[in-house]
Amino acid sequence: MPANHEHFVKKNAAYVSTFTKGALALPPSKHLTVVTCMDARIEPAGQLGIELGEAHIIRNAGGSAREALRSIVISQRLLGTREIAVFHHTGCGMLTFSTDQLKAIVKDAAPGDTKVEEEVEKFDSFLEFSELEQSVKGDVEFLQGNPLVLKETKITGWTYDVQSGKISQVV
Amino acid sequence: MPANHEHFVKKNAAYVSTFTKGALALPPSKHLTVVTCMDARIEPAGQLGIELGEAHIIRNAGGSAREALRSIVISQRLLGTREIAVFHHTGCGMLTFSTDQLKAIVKDAAPGDTKVEEEVEKFDSFLEFSELEQSVKGDVEFLQGNPLVLKETKITGWTYDVQSGKISQVV
Repeated sequence: MPANHEHFVKKNAAYVSTFTKGALALPPSKHLTVVTCMDARIEPAGQLGIELGEAHIIRNAGGSAREALRSIVISQRLLGTREIAVFHHTGCGMLTFSTDQLKAIVKDAAPGDTKVEEEVEKFDSFLEFSELEQSVKGDVEFLQGNPLVLKETKITGWTYDVQSGKISQVV
Repeated sequence: MPANHEHFVKKNAAYVSTFTKGALALPPSKHLTVVTCMDARIEPAGQLGIELGEAHIIRNAGGSAREALRSIVISQRLLGTREIAVFHHTGCGMLTFSTDQLKAIVKDAAPGDTKVEEEVEKFDSFLEFSELEQSVKGDVEFLQGNPLVLKETKITGWTYDVQSGKISQVV
């Protein structure tokens, strides 16, 4: 199977041929930051009706607002965003394992490799969660309580259902 | 101006009304992970021709592969991805400041607030960079050298031009 990257240039050429938005400004025009999961079934722009240029989109495993803090500080302080929407989703991989289990998988794949062991032990947690809505609430509370997040920020928390395509507000 | 989140439900309802992909599997079908910036002018799916369900998309300020490591470990070890493409882009906010400057902005906005000061000093670096292609090379080298990234991973590095919509391979 050819690597996916071998197709990027051809597919990008099709995008370039109809691209008309080269003059968009750097700061998001809707002053919005979305935090969501890296999951392959998520497409935040389509699912929320966000157009190019309107919002920062931060994505990581689970949609962790904690890990997103560096990006959020840059988004707010340098680029003027004042609203954060956190989305976690049904069927998330983060609901399926524990940090200890993942560390064991990594170590078992390289028995006796001390570099692998040292590196994986640098992670206190892989930020998994066991309950979806609670994880959203926890992330919203984290943002509300963190001194680096501007007080005037409108913060909401949501779930996305990968089977129906539907969002639901939690906070 | 109403908050953006007030429009999410209505816009999402339009998405749901034509949604047909509720049966997609959790693991990305193309075994691909893309790391790119949170920038509002980036839409990885459109720009690279990636369909729903095909790839993990990790996004943060700058498209840092270092910050993406937790997500990459989960993506590879639990969900079977074996290819990583790192994209940084022209006109990136990360080219416009230094960590010291950003720390000063944050502290100056809350004079005498020791909680703000403590919290911002937890960041050794905000992962800014001064040269675009070099930053891509550095991130690819980081991934190639990190013991947690599987040896058989195909890793490429790219730039995206926000004015033309065009990608260019760096590594």
